[in-house]
Amino acid sequence: MKQSQIFTKTQRQNPKDEESVNAILLPRAGFIYKEMAGVFSFLPLGLLVLNKISDIVREEMNGIGGQEVFLSVLQPKGLWEKTGRWDTGIGKDVMYKIKDGIEVGLGPTHEEMLTDIVKNYIENEDDLPFAIYQIQTKFRKEARAKSGLLRGREFLMKDLYSFHVSETDFKQFYEKAKKAYGRIFERCGLKAIITEASGGGFSKEFSHEFQIISEAGEDTIYFCPKEAEHFSQNEEIFDQKTTKCPVCKTALQKVKSIEAANIFSLGVKYSEPLAAFFRGKDGQKYPVIMGCYGIGVSRLMAAIVEVCHDDKGIVWPKEVAPFLCHLIPIVSGDAAQDKKTVNAAEKIYQDLQKKGIEVLYDERGRKFSTGEKFADADLIGAPTRIVVSQKTLAKSSAEIKQRNEEKTKLVPLKDLALTIKNNLQ
Amino acid sequence: MKQSQIFTKTQRQNPKDEESVNAILLPRAGFIYKEMAGVFSFLPLGLLVLNKISDIVREEMNGIGGQEVFLSVLQPKGLWEKTGRWDTGIGKDVMYKIKDGIEVGLGPTHEEMLTDIVKNYIENEDDLPFAIYQIQTKFRKEARAKSGLLRGREFLMKDLYSFHVSETDFKQFYEKAKKAYGRIFERCGLKAIITEASGGGFSKEFSHEFQIISEAGEDTIYFCPKEAEHFSQNEEIFDQKTTKCPVCKTALQKVKSIEAANIFSLGVKYSEPLAAFFRGKDGQKYPVIMGCYGIGVSRLMAAIVEVCHDDKGIVWPKEVAPFLCHLIPIVSGDAAQDKKTVNAAEKIYQDLQKKGIEVLYDERGRKFSTGEKFADADLIGAPTRIVVSQKTLAKSSAEIKQRNEEKTKLVPLKDLALTIKNNLQ
Repeated sequence: MKQSQIFTKTQRQNPKDEESVNAILLPRAGFIYKEMAGVFSFLPLGLLVLNKISDIVREEMNGIGGQEVFLSVLQPKGLWEKTGRWDTGIGKDVMYKIKDGIEVGLGPTHEEMLTDIVKNYIENEDDLPFAIYQIQTKFRKEARAKSGLLRGREFLMKDLYSFHVSETDFKQFYEKAKKAYGRIFERCGLKAIITEASGGGFSKEFSHEFQIISEAGEDTIYFCPKEAEHFSQNEEIFDQKTTKCPVCKTALQKVKSIEAANIFSLGVKYSEPLAAFFRGKDGQKYPVIMGCYGIGVSRLMAAIVEVCHDDKGIVWPKEVAPFLCHLIPIVSGDAAQDKKTVNAAEKIYQDLQKKGIEVLYDERGRKFSTGEKFADADLIGAPTRIVVSQKTLAKSSAEIKQRNEEKTKLVPLKDLALTIKNNLQ
Repeated sequence: MKQSQIFTKTQRQNPKDEESVNAILLPRAGFIYKEMAGVFSFLPLGLLVLNKISDIVREEMNGIGGQEVFLSVLQPKGLWEKTGRWDTGIGKDVMYKIKDGIEVGLGPTHEEMLTDIVKNYIENEDDLPFAIYQIQTKFRKEARAKSGLLRGREFLMKDLYSFHVSETDFKQFYEKAKKAYGRIFERCGLKAIITEASGGGFSKEFSHEFQIISEAGEDTIYFCPKEAEHFSQNEEIFDQKTTKCPVCKTALQKVKSIEAANIFSLGVKYSEPLAAFFRGKDGQKYPVIMGCYGIGVSRLMAAIVEVCHDDKGIVWPKEVAPFLCHLIPIVSGDAAQDKKTVNAAEKIYQDLQKKGIEVLYDERGRKFSTGEKFADADLIGAPTRIVVSQKTLAKSSAEIKQRNEEKTKLVPLKDLALTIKNNLQ
């Protein structure tokens, strides 16, 4: 995409009254716009990233057999009364409610609604198991909406629900989902620590959070720094008397972290009151065993920025970057030379795109100085910067620089696409 | 996709209390689920169609230079007060409102919000024109929510807004947008009649609706049946004394129709109160000239079903069909023969998918009769049905049938993919 065709512009100044890095860098670079505390709009660059994260999540959910749906936001009171949650817990504390004839809530989560749907399609054991997910906007009252996309009143979430005939089958799927979540974080360039947490009133045995170490996080975890798989617990359930890793005896470490996902057992909490039963081989009716697997898609975008940035801007991991490279021709004011440079840049732009490499092409000419263009490239954070100038073209080359490195490298124009692809592997 | 892997099942009975075809067929075939009047969830088959329509809309909007964004649903009262719409018109009549600290509305439309965003990025003439769109859920109070996806309280909409320095530039873009809309309807298999309508209080000159003739529609139009381009007006503005086409003198026809899209001039209605100004070459500030272009994405899905169906079910146009073909092996109970038939079907399934043809494969075996499977295929409505059986395999062939034709045709297995592709062109 040509940079002048994006209607947003970068801003030199940090927004006021923001502390967390994502709430500063994402608006400055033109990815998001703050409508009010905890409510953001996604601008063209931001939507590119949000879609890339969504697509990774979608691929991994499809990979474990998830079927995608798109449920409504508006939820009738009657459904929530069946599980007793309209006037207690999440329905009381965080659900926005409106009245239009009947009382209606804005979905903060979708256990009730989806259980109510699937029960129409379940008769006997043959109809199970299955897993259903959606990527959809959730709404939650937040007295303390802050930290940019980390905690919002309106946010994009992937919620998957699984349905089983037995605890054994549920546990097998739970482990598959846990692995899929691991792949999601890896592809997003993040290291997530699988952390034991309270089951939220359900089976305590099966509740795990995916925590990303960050000072911007609101959670606190205790984990084994030698091997997080040995031990990690959320402060909520942590026994302060424990000081060493139960496996390797390394001293546990206490850190702040961002809860980016959680997975847990629901047992029959929803299937019983909502009458989602299957008929067993013995002819008896049994409530379906359920699991729930959530991941904050817009929160993940924020977490990536919190972890992947420096003092100049964002450093996007390659799979979620809005563009793989940022192409900048250096123009000097010498019309004849500038024409050659711009022609070369145009050719590179077309060629890379043909080869499936996404390019942001800064063709804004002399309206901005080279310094301003480099600052924009660092702020926006594409993994590779490509510069062409009279100097590089004299060697039939372009200069490339990785966003997370200092060194630059001259690459012959004919090898450019291949070099960029290799760098990104 | 294998049919048994979709958690939904078709229903033999029509839902109660529904009159419009889309509200009957879409739930029966497992595309959507009615949560309450005017509120629907999209199940796996329905989401496939919704995504295909969205992708067509997205391609055509990108084709005229539209930049995609994703704005928030929650909108602060303050913004709407600036245009005077919080307590009047759409803000008073159809906007859902909640209070969470400040008063907030659920976006029924996004003129205020987007104008407030873009003004931060407009300085002078060079920054214009541009066009921005989103595909997003809208919320509107509907006392008469009915007719399935045709009129909802919660619905998916594409709204595009264009920003210009002059009326001339706006008019040029308006014509481009009108053509893009024409292509959208054509690709969706629909014939839309471009109809003059009231400008909703703005410039009367530029307001057009895209009307689809259907008894399920809530609008009434008067048009020239010989050539709709000659004359078509919404009843709202129609002069009942006019009886003949002003171009060819054919008697005008009165029909019920579905308003599937509208485009209109906004002038400076939003840019002035929200201070979206640009600096002209003379150094003076001028309000940006705006246009607005809406299309109901979920309504379009309903309109397609209203127009494209028969008494057996839906007849999806090829570009929006959830699957291009529905593959059904006929099993008889003879184990040896059935194994051969199923193996052949499996091979066709793999082969077609490799060639980029989307297949719904009915591998449900003898749990359902052949008649039930054919009825499901007709209800779900994929454009091509493929049947393999002992009889067809004896001739190294499969039987294909187009959903909108009665005749069947034997096609050699080796020519199957090519024949299906040709049929769909």
